[in-house]
Amino acid sequence: MKKDSNYSVPGFLASAVSAGLKKTSDLDLSLIFSQKKAVAAGVFTANKVKAAPILLSQERIQKGFLRAILANAGYANACTGDKGYKDAIQTADMVSKGLNIPPEETVVASTGVIGAYLPCNLIKKAVPSLIDKLSPHNFESVAKALMTTDSFPKISFFKGHADGCPFHLLGIAKGAGMIMPNMATMLSFLLTDINIDSQTLWPLFRSAVECTFNRITVDGETSTNDMVLIMANGIAGNGTLTKKDVKEFEKGLTDVMGTLAYMIAQDGEGATKTVIIEVHGAASKDDAHTAARVVGNSNLVKTTLFGQDPNWGRIMAAIGRSGVTMEENKVQIWIQGVKIVEGGLMTTEDAEKKAAEKMKRKQITITIHLNQGEWKDRITTCDLTYDYIRINAGYRT
Amino acid sequence: MKKDSNYSVPGFLASAVSAGLKKTSDLDLSLIFSQKKAVAAGVFTANKVKAAPILLSQERIQKGFLRAILANAGYANACTGDKGYKDAIQTADMVSKGLNIPPEETVVASTGVIGAYLPCNLIKKAVPSLIDKLSPHNFESVAKALMTTDSFPKISFFKGHADGCPFHLLGIAKGAGMIMPNMATMLSFLLTDINIDSQTLWPLFRSAVECTFNRITVDGETSTNDMVLIMANGIAGNGTLTKKDVKEFEKGLTDVMGTLAYMIAQDGEGATKTVIIEVHGAASKDDAHTAARVVGNSNLVKTTLFGQDPNWGRIMAAIGRSGVTMEENKVQIWIQGVKIVEGGLMTTEDAEKKAAEKMKRKQITITIHLNQGEWKDRITTCDLTYDYIRINAGYRT
Repeated sequence: MKKDSNYSVPGFLASAVSAGLKKTSDLDLSLIFSQKKAVAAGVFTANKVKAAPILLSQERIQKGFLRAILANAGYANACTGDKGYKDAIQTADMVSKGLNIPPEETVVASTGVIGAYLPCNLIKKAVPSLIDKLSPHNFESVAKALMTTDSFPKISFFKGHADGCPFHLLGIAKGAGMIMPNMATMLSFLLTDINIDSQTLWPLFRSAVECTFNRITVDGETSTNDMVLIMANGIAGNGTLTKKDVKEFEKGLTDVMGTLAYMIAQDGEGATKTVIIEVHGAASKDDAHTAARVVGNSNLVKTTLFGQDPNWGRIMAAIGRSGVTMEENKVQIWIQGVKIVEGGLMTTEDAEKKAAEKMKRKQITITIHLNQGEWKDRITTCDLTYDYIRINAGYRT
Repeated sequence: MKKDSNYSVPGFLASAVSAGLKKTSDLDLSLIFSQKKAVAAGVFTANKVKAAPILLSQERIQKGFLRAILANAGYANACTGDKGYKDAIQTADMVSKGLNIPPEETVVASTGVIGAYLPCNLIKKAVPSLIDKLSPHNFESVAKALMTTDSFPKISFFKGHADGCPFHLLGIAKGAGMIMPNMATMLSFLLTDINIDSQTLWPLFRSAVECTFNRITVDGETSTNDMVLIMANGIAGNGTLTKKDVKEFEKGLTDVMGTLAYMIAQDGEGATKTVIIEVHGAASKDDAHTAARVVGNSNLVKTTLFGQDPNWGRIMAAIGRSGVTMEENKVQIWIQGVKIVEGGLMTTEDAEKKAAEKMKRKQITITIHLNQGEWKDRITTCDLTYDYIRINAGYRT
């Protein structure tokens, strides 16, 4: 991890404090502030049970502009009904008043235990100090304040040029579980100084989320609180983006979000390995995605990864139950480059031995070729271990 | 478990031996034989990767009659291609010749490691002794010979009357994992002496499978080898079944298969608890089934069951991501009769404490009311424990 001061984006300030929301004295409340009104977009959980911060932020981002994000760990403010929604508004208002910005330009994000009310009094006490501490060099502290069962803070950074002007893109994320285990909530905030309009930003942002954050899995669960936000304040000063500029920004988005997504899978609850499941030769786009996702979510595949056993039969069986178009005798499988299955059958015992050696690595790629068509996709996942059980079977209180 | 001799059905013989297919000297090969040609039906795995015994048995049962079932543990004979299919035919033929019955009236069933070829020589050596030992009182031995990681043999029995004649229905099953861990293959054989034609048997059998074996889950995986077979030899001597007779037989099927299905969930790999997920008030039949299945397969719900923590937020979140029609503020949840959620919110802390007490039980029912319509369904599942990881992360060889 580079030094904190390396991560900054002109016009964005940040701060983090310990407000007493975690049981430890660790950072747990953070604020991001754009000195200039920023174009903004967000992608929110597909879960029908949406936490109060999701409902409020989803509503406020409709206008396409934001100034501030208040984020807390420790409490999800989910399944908290009307009171939870009011608490979300109330805490957002504390920030808006303190910063003297319109209420609708502040959003909130939460991660933590479901069903408990937000301790608004603790947040109220902490907000003045949050505002006091705002600085251009606090983003690593924000990443730390978002952490729950995360074992390391997640930041990624990109510098590019648009219309001859340098621009910056900073991404922060948390993933993979709660300090009082509950859900593998994923939060991510992207901050950039590029000058871009809503119409251009939205499809680029949406598609980058699709091929990064939507291509990882830890345990197949979808949290009530998942949220990815982007703010672009335009301070870079570039004029209308050319095709080339758009391409460069797109690359930045994919790089930054891809790195954060990989870090989330790597830091999956209890994970000892990060595993990429690549599917080639699928009959359709959906088939490629489904096959990768079913294999990547299979408990039997994930335990065999933990056991470092090249048990290819479980991969075959997962593909077979995924419902995608496939013929057993056309399937090929490679484990970290070692071809272990050809025509649906094991290649050689020697290959199995070599694959077993490769499985001792911390990072493994499993490549599946269905030989049904031209579509491909990939999912990044992790293994299923004793520690996943320990973390998630622990009592909340 | 009642004494072996209590389980018999007129006209059916059985035997089991140790053929050396398991690493231990435990029983691993078994034979069921009907002295009279029996009306037969089968339900086979939905996995597109089908083991050789599935392909062969599915083909042979088309005619609607069977005389013998040869079953082995230790080897799945799955992902074994043409050779595997020939091995399945060859081993079935050993039985058909020995019993002097048409080849197409013998089927085979296998459970064990995927991708290894069946040791046909070991089976060939054992078949004469299998045939020698056929007796009306060997069904518990068959149940034992099917076991892999099962911790107890699974048998259930029903006696009824049809057209004034007593009839018997015996069911045997294995579930929940392999001795060399691979898949939670489920095999079940139902034997009855009722006189019934194929047209009457099929829908009764199919619908009993649907509401019993298709309503359990251990880890959401579908094996390459799952198979449920029924044989009815007509020896009870009843005439055409009246509506009342059909109802009684239907009750027998549901009782016997329901008991076996419950035993399979109870004996899920590493399970310490058997948990029924009941969904009421769903907007459609599919919604009721989907909601129950998603909650029953959620790793986060299953670890919270192991942790004995009434973490209802995880149940809410699983319902929310299941895609069914639901409104958060209409959901009610009971844990073993204790109402913990009303209108999407926790009822009282006292209820949470009471629910925590109830969760110490070995058998728990979680009742969910969606208040969206009139449909209901239920799934029997188990918790997710350290032992599931231990069993499934173990190396195969």
